[in-house]
Amino acid sequence: MQRIFTNELSAHVGGRVRLAGWLQQRRELSRVTFVVLRDARGLAQIVVEDDAVRDFLPETVVEVEGDAVAASQAPGGVELHSPTFAVLAEPAEAPPIELRRPELKEQLPTILDHAPVALRHPRKRACFEIASATLAGYRSALDARGFTEIQTPKIVASATESGANVFELDYFGRPAYLAQSPQFFKQIMVGVFERVYEVGPVFRAEPHDTPRHLAEYVSLDAELGFVDDHRTVMRFARDAVAGMAEGVRSRAAAAVALLEVELPDVPDEIPTLDFPVAQQLIEDATGERIIGEPDLAPAHERWLGDWARREHGSDFVFVTGYPMSKRPFYTHPDPARPELSNSFDLIFRGLELITGGQRLHRYDDYVSALAARGQSPAPYEGYLQAFKHGMPPHGGFAIGLERWVARLVGAANIRETTLFPRDLNRLSP
Amino acid sequence: MQRIFTNELSAHVGGRVRLAGWLQQRRELSRVTFVVLRDARGLAQIVVEDDAVRDFLPETVVEVEGDAVAASQAPGGVELHSPTFAVLAEPAEAPPIELRRPELKEQLPTILDHAPVALRHPRKRACFEIASATLAGYRSALDARGFTEIQTPKIVASATESGANVFELDYFGRPAYLAQSPQFFKQIMVGVFERVYEVGPVFRAEPHDTPRHLAEYVSLDAELGFVDDHRTVMRFARDAVAGMAEGVRSRAAAAVALLEVELPDVPDEIPTLDFPVAQQLIEDATGERIIGEPDLAPAHERWLGDWARREHGSDFVFVTGYPMSKRPFYTHPDPARPELSNSFDLIFRGLELITGGQRLHRYDDYVSALAARGQSPAPYEGYLQAFKHGMPPHGGFAIGLERWVARLVGAANIRETTLFPRDLNRLSP
Repeated sequence: MQRIFTNELSAHVGGRVRLAGWLQQRRELSRVTFVVLRDARGLAQIVVEDDAVRDFLPETVVEVEGDAVAASQAPGGVELHSPTFAVLAEPAEAPPIELRRPELKEQLPTILDHAPVALRHPRKRACFEIASATLAGYRSALDARGFTEIQTPKIVASATESGANVFELDYFGRPAYLAQSPQFFKQIMVGVFERVYEVGPVFRAEPHDTPRHLAEYVSLDAELGFVDDHRTVMRFARDAVAGMAEGVRSRAAAAVALLEVELPDVPDEIPTLDFPVAQQLIEDATGERIIGEPDLAPAHERWLGDWARREHGSDFVFVTGYPMSKRPFYTHPDPARPELSNSFDLIFRGLELITGGQRLHRYDDYVSALAARGQSPAPYEGYLQAFKHGMPPHGGFAIGLERWVARLVGAANIRETTLFPRDLNRLSP
Repeated sequence: MQRIFTNELSAHVGGRVRLAGWLQQRRELSRVTFVVLRDARGLAQIVVEDDAVRDFLPETVVEVEGDAVAASQAPGGVELHSPTFAVLAEPAEAPPIELRRPELKEQLPTILDHAPVALRHPRKRACFEIASATLAGYRSALDARGFTEIQTPKIVASATESGANVFELDYFGRPAYLAQSPQFFKQIMVGVFERVYEVGPVFRAEPHDTPRHLAEYVSLDAELGFVDDHRTVMRFARDAVAGMAEGVRSRAAAAVALLEVELPDVPDEIPTLDFPVAQQLIEDATGERIIGEPDLAPAHERWLGDWARREHGSDFVFVTGYPMSKRPFYTHPDPARPELSNSFDLIFRGLELITGGQRLHRYDDYVSALAARGQSPAPYEGYLQAFKHGMPPHGGFAIGLERWVARLVGAANIRETTLFPRDLNRLSP
């Protein structure tokens, strides 16, 4: 008999079926035992009238054949009667996490220590179904717009972008580093494909133990050439996010329902504030003296998120024109206001989700930008080759996958949106 | 005027159009100059009757407006007349690679040293269009079969699988390692999603400088639960490869044509040889005494590739039942012949493309397998949690993206199929 999944049961009422999965829960009454079986798609209730399951530990892996019977009180409206069980694997001991609860009650460190078991909980699983659907939607949106997917090295020769927070490794006896982003490679690849994206790990040796920091996370990067300025890039960033939302909507509907995710509408025209205007708004509203500060604090981003929701009914707001002093050396200045940049952040429900902008594209501008920061061009030789040999005006953006998921599912800690988080203290499982 | 791409020119004959791209080549005759412009989609010839381009270096980035005129001798059958140029970026110097040639003439080290320019060559670019299309086809095949995409850590706590050839890094003052594969994580995730795949970088500190070795490459991993044995896994591996071939066929047609790639047919039933039978065949045919050897040498794989082509008209052949002694500790033995394994390799045109098999799924079996190799279970604690708490029979496979592309395009050196290769000696660009 062909195995079916629990979410297919209702199509088989009246017939005998085979399920397979994990025995998540057993509830013994005086005459019968109710068993909950979990598979990749959901849960099914099984009514057992003998002692067949008496010795089964939770998480025993079984195949079960039984009669599919309509039962309004069972999950999905169908339960299995007259079951026969075949054990595929017996656990060595009872699980350290109580998977039978509707929500896990354990503290986060306990959950993370026991991720191989805790991730089996339907609510944890749903979180990563949303992550997977996001990636599919992101790729689909960019594929449709002529982007080529690339894979670039994670081992690099020099600690480039910021210099700080970089992991060093022993590369055949020489020092090397883990890439903090595919920034340099994706820019180089604009010279090849004009439009590129990459989905891959990035590494930050963040010496902070906070709910927002990870040492390794998944970055959704894109870069495109022949742009007018950062506003061209913003249009594509908007389309990428719309694709992500659509991916979740169309591919992770059950997870969205289970976690009661409210998917955002992505407006065709996302409200946009220039950095000085944003500061003025916040200062006028809060009385906090922030004009002249070179960046926005998390509290200011939250304020802008509320503003966008209140004034425009939007979950998103772009902030443009950040001061050059807080942006990386490859940032293109605003020609009309050279102390400000052709850059942007996209704030989603009060949290910075995307950073992007136009980049310098002339070789001489790179040499000058590095010199102005007291840096030699030598460590950047490979990167600078691209500009030495003709690069169009271009720009791009990066999206943190975990931040997006965290904001969607309302996770308080970014670690909840990472299968096996890496941070200052955590390196396993 | 909206920019069009070079491959759209033929739809605009008789009109005035705008192109943008790189001036790849200039050929001056007595009265006119022929210019070849390259963009992301192809090449276009431009006829210049004044000295507008006289001072342009190769790789100058321009916008050009001109009249699209049918011209049978021009690439694509259309050329641009009466052009006006706007320079978007001037190169600092002439390129170190002669991109105008139909095939690059430079030696491989020169090409790799100047990858930011060399990758712009249409033949180089085509190679990576094929890689990108492969990934799309792989994902599409597995998405359609109920697999969930995952992203797992590349920084890990212990040098696991083989112990050798692992990169060590400084993780906040402690030693950590770069993942040699997502093996342990994808197995754990079978307990969560039943069917998972991952596309990501893997790291091998290969102390060999050969045309086959890379220190970092892209692995296409998959793992699935509730299998009968390795033969269930082989069916999915077959479908994944068929998806890859279909992805290339449907998404990279121009690249396939340019590089004269002969795409393989993937038979519904790929010819399969049991390891002892394969050895016997080779020994009988070649006279080489190999029976009793625990593995096949590259020459033997080539022989089997020829055999499959000759006997079955197939570019593919599975070899099953490799000796346990040469397979990793998590390999499931063949219950009928415990010295042989429920594993397989898929040989594509004489080269091992896929390694896979059934894994152990019982906790006690893992403890025994590690003990038999003289290893403590302690470093594997996180991994073993999954088995301690119930795992179904499962298995999976891994495909090296670069090997697939190399075999398709006929690259002699694996470095030609990697954007920015990392090896014993090369760490940049």
